Amino acid sequence: MSDLFQALFEPRRIALIGASADVTKTTSRPQRFLRKHGFVGEILPINPSRTEILGEKAYRDLDAVSGDIDHAYILLNGKAAVDALAACGRRGVKVASILAGGFADAGAAGASMQDDLARIVRETGVRLVGPNSIGTVSTDPAVALTANAAFAVDKLRSGSWGLVSQSGSLIGALLSRADARGIGFSRLISVGNEVDLAVGEIADMMVDDPRTNAILLFMETLRDGERLARAARRAHEAGKPVIAYKLGRSDIGQELAKSHTGAIAGSDATFDAFCRRHGIVRVSMFESLIDVPALLVDRPPAKGKRVAVATTTGGGAAMVVDNMAMAGLDIADPPQALVDWLKPLGIAAGEGKLVDLTLAGAKPEIVSGTIERLLADDANDAAIFVVGSSAQFNPELAVEPLLKFAKSAKPFAVALTPAADKSLALLTAAGVPAFRHPESCAEAMAACLLRPAPQPVPALAEPTRRALDALEAGRVNSFDERRAADFFGALGVPLAKALAIPDAKRVAAAVNEIGAPVVLKILSRDIAHKTEAGGVALGLPDGQTAALAAREMEKRVRAHSPHAKLDGFLIQKMERGLAEVILGFRRDPLVGPTVTVGLGGVLAEIYKDAATRLAPVDEAEAKQMIDEVKGLATIRGYRNLPRGDVAALAKAIAAFSTLAHKAFADVSEAEINPLLVKREGEGVVAVDGLVLLQP
Amino acid sequence: MSDLFQALFEPRRIALIGASADVTKTTSRPQRFLRKHGFVGEILPINPSRTEILGEKAYRDLDAVSGDIDHAYILLNGKAAVDALAACGRRGVKVASILAGGFADAGAAGASMQDDLARIVRETGVRLVGPNSIGTVSTDPAVALTANAAFAVDKLRSGSWGLVSQSGSLIGALLSRADARGIGFSRLISVGNEVDLAVGEIADMMVDDPRTNAILLFMETLRDGERLARAARRAHEAGKPVIAYKLGRSDIGQELAKSHTGAIAGSDATFDAFCRRHGIVRVSMFESLIDVPALLVDRPPAKGKRVAVATTTGGGAAMVVDNMAMAGLDIADPPQALVDWLKPLGIAAGEGKLVDLTLAGAKPEIVSGTIERLLADDANDAAIFVVGSSAQFNPELAVEPLLKFAKSAKPFAVALTPAADKSLALLTAAGVPAFRHPESCAEAMAACLLRPAPQPVPALAEPTRRALDALEAGRVNSFDERRAADFFGALGVPLAKALAIPDAKRVAAAVNEIGAPVVLKILSRDIAHKTEAGGVALGLPDGQTAALAAREMEKRVRAHSPHAKLDGFLIQKMERGLAEVILGFRRDPLVGPTVTVGLGGVLAEIYKDAATRLAPVDEAEAKQMIDEVKGLATIRGYRNLPRGDVAALAKAIAAFSTLAHKAFADVSEAEINPLLVKREGEGVVAVDGLVLLQP
Repeated sequence: MSDLFQALFEPRRIALIGASADVTKTTSRPQRFLRKHGFVGEILPINPSRTEILGEKAYRDLDAVSGDIDHAYILLNGKAAVDALAACGRRGVKVASILAGGFADAGAAGASMQDDLARIVRETGVRLVGPNSIGTVSTDPAVALTANAAFAVDKLRSGSWGLVSQSGSLIGALLSRADARGIGFSRLISVGNEVDLAVGEIADMMVDDPRTNAILLFMETLRDGERLARAARRAHEAGKPVIAYKLGRSDIGQELAKSHTGAIAGSDATFDAFCRRHGIVRVSMFESLIDVPALLVDRPPAKGKRVAVATTTGGGAAMVVDNMAMAGLDIADPPQALVDWLKPLGIAAGEGKLVDLTLAGAKPEIVSGTIERLLADDANDAAIFVVGSSAQFNPELAVEPLLKFAKSAKPFAVALTPAADKSLALLTAAGVPAFRHPESCAEAMAACLLRPAPQPVPALAEPTRRALDALEAGRVNSFDERRAADFFGALGVPLAKALAIPDAKRVAAAVNEIGAPVVLKILSRDIAHKTEAGGVALGLPDGQTAALAAREMEKRVRAHSPHAKLDGFLIQKMERGLAEVILGFRRDPLVGPTVTVGLGGVLAEIYKDAATRLAPVDEAEAKQMIDEVKGLATIRGYRNLPRGDVAALAKAIAAFSTLAHKAFADVSEAEINPLLVKREGEGVVAVDGLVLLQP
Repeated sequence: MSDLFQALFEPRRIALIGASADVTKTTSRPQRFLRKHGFVGEILPINPSRTEILGEKAYRDLDAVSGDIDHAYILLNGKAAVDALAACGRRGVKVASILAGGFADAGAAGASMQDDLARIVRETGVRLVGPNSIGTVSTDPAVALTANAAFAVDKLRSGSWGLVSQSGSLIGALLSRADARGIGFSRLISVGNEVDLAVGEIADMMVDDPRTNAILLFMETLRDGERLARAARRAHEAGKPVIAYKLGRSDIGQELAKSHTGAIAGSDATFDAFCRRHGIVRVSMFESLIDVPALLVDRPPAKGKRVAVATTTGGGAAMVVDNMAMAGLDIADPPQALVDWLKPLGIAAGEGKLVDLTLAGAKPEIVSGTIERLLADDANDAAIFVVGSSAQFNPELAVEPLLKFAKSAKPFAVALTPAADKSLALLTAAGVPAFRHPESCAEAMAACLLRPAPQPVPALAEPTRRALDALEAGRVNSFDERRAADFFGALGVPLAKALAIPDAKRVAAAVNEIGAPVVLKILSRDIAHKTEAGGVALGLPDGQTAALAAREMEKRVRAHSPHAKLDGFLIQKMERGLAEVILGFRRDPLVGPTVTVGLGGVLAEIYKDAATRLAPVDEAEAKQMIDEVKGLATIRGYRNLPRGDVAALAKAIAAFSTLAHKAFADVSEAEINPLLVKREGEGVVAVDGLVLLQP
C-alpha cells in the first residue's frame, strides 16, 4: 500500500480542523462517526476556542500538534478553508480533505478561491481531496472520516468493493441501499471538485488495494481521463471490474451536471466511447451499480452471449428473458441431457427455450440437477435460475440448492420474483450474484457477457513529411477545400481526382486529363458559400461544356461577390458511390480526440445514426464502427443490394483517425462529407472536407 | 355489485373440489388460506374419501351439499377437472375456478380438454376462471381463495388497487413486493387460460367495484380486447387508471409468452396502439406496476409535461431529472417567487433548473415553503421533491413537511435517494406517491403527464357503391395492380393517373391523354414479377417513345413468358414526390384492424421507422402518426427543405384506414407502396399497391 493510499484511507493520526462539540452540527459528525465505528487511531480536533471536544483533547491550531499528521479533514468554509489548507501544506500533512462547497461549483469568486487551493497543492505538495468532499471511509480497519449523515448507521458493513463518487450525497444513498441487501464496501470516497485527487488516480490506487476487488464510480463528469483509462486497464489485468454510472444521458442531465457541481459533462456518446476503449462497464440503472459487480468480479470477458434460463415460476422468468433479449443477449436452448433427465420426472422441458420446472420441479435435487446440467452444456455461456414464492417463505430451503454454484466456472446468477430480502442476503453472503429486478438482472448479465476487454490503443506512425507540409500550408494560407483535400490525401484518405487551374482557358485540358463527367468549382478564399455565389457546377459531360460553364461561372461569381479575389477553378472528377458517409474528428474536452462515422445525407442526421470512438482507431475497430451504423447495412450485404467496399472504408477511417497524433494537435476539428463508398473492390473516395484549427 | 362479481370475489359459500387434508399439498392451501385470513363464510370441502378435512365437514360430491354454492374451486387435474366443471354446471354453481394447468398450455390433448371446458360453459351457463388459475382473492372482506404460496403471509394487507394477472405466480410476487412497501390490494385474480372470464371482463367489473380505484394488469397476451377496451374507457370515466405490464417487448419474449401459456403474444407495436387508443398506461419496469398507480388515481390527464424538481440532495435529484428528460418530460424553471423567498435564507435557487436547497435548506419550513411555491406556479404541471439521508434516519421528520401535499391539485411525488423503507411506508400511508428508484419515478411521472385520454373511435361512413364494386371485382377476378388501384381510389386515396389499354396501338393516344412522362407496365394476371419479365419501363418522355417501348416490351415479355395471357398495358403518369411513404393495413389476431405509416425505401426498413394505430383513424390521429415517423421530418419543415403536403397525407391515411369497416372484412392485408408526398398544397399520389383477401 502506498503512503498516499494509507494516509487517505487508513490514516492513524487524523486532524479535524474546525471540529465542533455541538452534536447538532454537521462539523461534529466526522469525530462522532470515527469513534462510533471504532477508529483506533488518534483524533486531533483543531479549534482555537476549545481545549476539549467530545471527550478528546483539542488543539488551538495545527502547529500545536506534535508529530506526523496523516490526514486532515478541513471543516471550515471559504477563505478559512484555504488558509487551513495552506497550514496543512506548511505543516507537512500528507492528505487534506475539504468538506465545504462554494468553490468552482459557485461562480467566479468561488472559482478564484479554488485556484488558490490548486496553487497551495502545487507549491507545498500536500495532496487534496475536494473541496466539496463529504468524506473518505474505510470499513476494515474502520475509518469513518465523513460528515455524511448515512454513516449514523449502527454498524458499518465491510465488503470488498471500493466506491468513488463525484456526488457526496450518493455515497450515503449507495451505502444504505447496499446495506439493505447485505452488501458492504471496502472504501468509499467523495471526491468533490477534484482540484487534486480525482476519480482516476483514486481508482488507480484501488487496483493495488488488496481489500478491494471491484471499483464502482458515480460520475457527473470526467476530469482525469488519462489516469482513469490507466486505472481501468490495470484493473482489468487484476480481474477487478470497473463499473460506472454517469449522469448526463439526457441533454438536461448534462446541463444539470454542469450547474450542480461546476463540471462540464461530456457528450454521452464520447463517454461511452471512453468506457468501451478502456474496458469500463457503464450501467444505466442506479441500483445496477450495486447489482452488477458480483457477476463480474474475477471473471474474464465471456466468449459468447447465450444465456440458459431455468425456473419454477414461468411468468417471472419470462420477464427476465424479455429484458435480456432487449439487452442484446441470446437465450440458449435447453441441453438434450437435461431434457432427457427431466422427462422421467414428469417435467417437459423440451418445448421453448425456458426450462420451466413448474411447481412439480420445485425440489432441491431437481433444481440443483437442472443447474448442473445447464452449466455443463457447451451451447450456453451463462445460466440464470429464477426463483418464485419459496424464496419468500422458505429462504433457507429455496436458496440451499443454489449456493454450491457460487464458484461456477461460468457466470451463474439468481433472480428473485417476490420481495425476498432474506434469500437475497443468503445468496449474497454465499457469493451467488442475486437480483431482485428483472431489469437489473438483464443489465448485469449483458454487462457480464457483452463487455469488451480494454482495446489496445493503436500505435501511431510518425506523420509523413507530406502530411506535415500540408498542415503547414493550411496553417499559413488557411484551409480552403483544396488544401484540406491535400491534407486528407497525405493522411491516406483516397480523394476524388482533381486539378486546380488558374483560369477558364485551361478547363478543357484539365477535363481531358481527369476524365468526364466533372464538377467545376470556383476557387476563392473570400467566398465561404460557393453554391450560393453560383460557384459550383455539377455533372459537366465534356471539356467544351465545362469550359463554357467556367466562363459563365466567373461572370456569375463576379456579379455576386465583386470584391472577392478569384484564384481560378477546381475541376474534380464527378464520383458516384453506393453510400455517402460522413467522417468527423474532434477533440472532446473530457475524453480527448474522437472519430465519428455516420451515414451522410439528411435522413442519417434525423436518425442520429453514427458510431463514435476514441481516436485513433485501427482497421478492426473501424470495421466495428461501420457495423454499428445501422444505415450502412445497405453496403454490408443487404437483400440483393450490391456490397460496398467496407474494407476500403475501414482503412480510410483508420487513416483519418491518425489526426489524433500530437503532431496534428493544432487541428481542433475535421470533417469529410461526403466520403463515397463504391462497390466491393472499387474503394472509397472523399469528395469534400474541411479542417478547423485551434484558435 | 353484480351477482357475478359477488360470487367471484365475495362468495359466501365456497366449494373446494378435491380439497386435501395433507398440509404439504398445494390442494390444501385454499382452505388453509381462507381460514387463516379470516373468511367468515362457509367452506365446503368436496372429497369422496373423507368426511372431515382440516376441521370442516367434508362432502362426497357436489350433490351432497344443499343450498346455493357461490364459487367452486376445482383442485383436480385433467379429465377429473372437466367432470367437476360439468357437475358445477349441473348443480347451478355461479362461478367455478380451475387450478390445474395442462390444457391449451400443453399440446393437442390438453387443447381438446380445454374445448370440453368451453362447451360446458356454453351449455350450462356456469362462469369459469381458468384453467390454470392460482386463485381469486379479496382482502376486505377477506376471501383468500387461492393456492398461491405467497398467501402464507401472516396478514393480508388491504388496499384499493385491483390486480388481474395472466401469470399465477406473479400474483404472489406483486403481493409480496407491494406489501414490503406498505401497499395492499382490493382484489387479486389469476385468470389463467381464460376459457371464459378474461382480463377485459374482470377489469370491466372492477370499474364498478367501490373498493377498487386502480386496475393493474399483468399480461402475456390479449384474449378479449374489445371487452378490455370498453373496461378501460369506462375506467377512465370513473377516474380509475388502468395500468398494464405486458410481456413480449422482445421477439424472444413474444415467443416465450406463447410457449409458456399457450397464448399468442401480439406484436408489441400493435399492443401499444391498443393501449394508446383506449387510454391504458403501459409500463416497462415490473415494479412500476405498483409504483405508478398512486400518481394516477383520481387524476385527469395533465395539460402539460413540465415538472419542477426540488431537493436537498443534488446528485439524487440529478438522476431523477436525467431519467425524466429521457422519458420525454421537460424540467420547469424555478418560479421567481421561490427564488426571491429563498434568497434571504441564503439559498441560491436561481441558477439551473433544479432547486437544490442543499443541507442549509433541509428544514421543514423551508422544504414545505418551497413545495408550496412550486405547486402554486403556473409554469409547471407537476412537482417532485427528492429526499436524501434524512429519510433514512429521521423518517418522521423528513416526511412530515411533505404529507400535507397528498391532496395537491397538481401531481406531486417524492423520490427517496437512500434505502428508506420507513419513510416510504409513511408517505404511502398518507397518500403521497413515493418512489425508491429514479427510473420508476420518471416512468410514473411520464405516465401521469404524457398519457392520452382514450381516443374516440372514428365513426365509419357506409362504404360507397364504387368501393363495394371494386372489392367485388377483385374478389371475382383477383386483385391485380389495376383493380387494387380502383379499390384504393374508391376508398378516397388519390392515385397516379393511369389508363389500361388493350394493345400497343393505343399507347400514343393514352400518353397524350395522361401527359408525359409516363411509366409503361404490361398487364397480365399470369405474370407475378413484371420487372423481371421485362414488363416495366420508366420515364418515357413522349407518346412515340412509349409506343416503341410497348412493342419492344411485348416481344420481351412473350420471350420471357410464352404461356402468359397478356391483357394489354397500363400507362401511368410518372410521378415524383418529396418523400415516399408506405401505408399498411392488417388485421392483428389480438387487437384487430391496424394501420401503419412508414417511410418508404430501404433505409426506413432498416431503421424500422413507422407508426401503428388501431384502424380506423381520423385525420387528427393520422397527423399524429405522421409526426411520429422520424424520417418524415423531411416533409414537416426541416432546415430549408420544402414542406410536403402533410394534410393530404393525413387525409389519405384516414381514407385507407376505412378498410376497417366490416363491409371489407374479406381484406386481410393491404399495402400502398409507394405513396408519394408532393409539395404543400399539391397532394399525395399512390403509385402501387396490393390487396390480400382472407383465404
